[in-house]
Amino acid sequence: MATPEDRLAELGYSLPEPLKLPPGVALPFPWVRVVGMRALISGHGPTDAHGHLAQPLGKVGTEVSENEAYVAARLAGLAILGSLKRELGSLARIARWVRVFGMVNSAPGFNRQPAVINGCSDLILDVFGRERGAHARSAVGLAELPFRIPVEIEGEVEIDA
Amino acid sequence: MATPEDRLAELGYSLPEPLKLPPGVALPFPWVRVVGMRALISGHGPTDAHGHLAQPLGKVGTEVSENEAYVAARLAGLAILGSLKRELGSLARIARWVRVFGMVNSAPGFNRQPAVINGCSDLILDVFGRERGAHARSAVGLAELPFRIPVEIEGEVEIDA
Amino acid sequence: MATPEDRLAELGYSLPEPLKLPPGVALPFPWVRVVGMRALISGHGPTDAHGHLAQPLGKVGTEVSENEAYVAARLAGLAILGSLKRELGSLARIARWVRVFGMVNSAPGFNRQPAVINGCSDLILDVFGRERGAHARSAVGLAELPFRIPVEIEGEVEIDA
Repeated sequence: MATPEDRLAELGYSLPEPLKLPPGVALPFPWVRVVGMRALISGHGPTDAHGHLAQPLGKVGTEVSENEAYVAARLAGLAILGSLKRELGSLARIARWVRVFGMVNSAPGFNRQPAVINGCSDLILDVFGRERGAHARSAVGLAELPFRIPVEIEGEVEIDA
Repeated sequence: MATPEDRLAELGYSLPEPLKLPPGVALPFPWVRVVGMRALISGHGPTDAHGHLAQPLGKVGTEVSENEAYVAARLAGLAILGSLKRELGSLARIARWVRVFGMVNSAPGFNRQPAVINGCSDLILDVFGRERGAHARSAVGLAELPFRIPVEIEGEVEIDA
Repeated sequence: MATPEDRLAELGYSLPEPLKLPPGVALPFPWVRVVGMRALISGHGPTDAHGHLAQPLGKVGTEVSENEAYVAARLAGLAILGSLKRELGSLARIARWVRVFGMVNSAPGFNRQPAVINGCSDLILDVFGRERGAHARSAVGLAELPFRIPVEIEGEVEIDA
């Protein structure tokens, strides 16, 4: 059976390096916290292959287009998969997805957050399939996000014992 | 013993049909995700009996009054109960409430989010009682919500095996 | 072995009384909801020793400085520990931290939410150590928070059976 890693390769996606933090910022917590069969995922933003914050930054609806924000949500999803792989060793240990909480740095009047966060949900469903990949989800508009990232996503997966 | 469905009828409330999405919007995820004994609830907004977004839409504090927003939070709660009933078959399978996260589409200066989200919490406590219905809760002000809904609520319940 | 309570005393911190709500506000839910081995923590703001909302209130970046907000996040963390101690009897029952969700009442253009929420994360790590205290975390900018508090934090811990 194809692994999630196989499926990512088929789709032409690769997992980014860990986030390289801007100077002067320390994040005193792990990107993934494993507690029993649960893996809790810290808020991730979009990064490029080398772990630098992906461009464009700013508010969705003015500085960042809806299409760019959809891609940013997919990049945040790839960053999450990178963190999960580093923590778990293999993405095949993910038994099923549980929850995705998608936060969009929203310009006044921008209210298509679900279309943006689909960038992450579509990735998860493409890689894990409709049963393992299904997840409870909210997609909402935040006033500000760290470092002006357009999208931040946290979530949870269930892992095999 | 009275079921939650009996209690809803006593209170004069009925559960709405599933959300009818605006044209051009696809939501590739379930409204409720069951993982073991946990049922995770996606973000729900207020709907009318037929699953259309309930009026009024917009920002609480200017376009939507605090009282209208309290009613909207109750409608979001009823939409959640509708989704739980469709997923679980019976609301009696809810062993206890776990968490409610209430997000209010807030006009600048509106800071009575707890009074608004009480519309949902009061419903849960009325229907499930103070033991089964108790829940951890946050009630906070969002910059924007999808489709300009005044309130979006996600949460979690524990279900019987 | 030193208990979390010992460690708090060493650090010179004491736990505040429960929040004294402003007149006319009722919060119909518990500060901590225990479900099996999980303790879910409702959204807490910063309070003084007597449970009154701590000053300054308002938006971080204009009315509240980043340093004041860091202290406010630590006070919210102390309020959480106070609620956990009242619910669990002893903080030593906390087997490990799971999740911290940090919400900063953000003025336009303020995007150093992680540095603010470190006030809570640093406290948890100081008191519980790097293994028990590790937690998945998001730190994001909200448009408005109840009663104009600068910071609101919710989370989850695992407790011993």
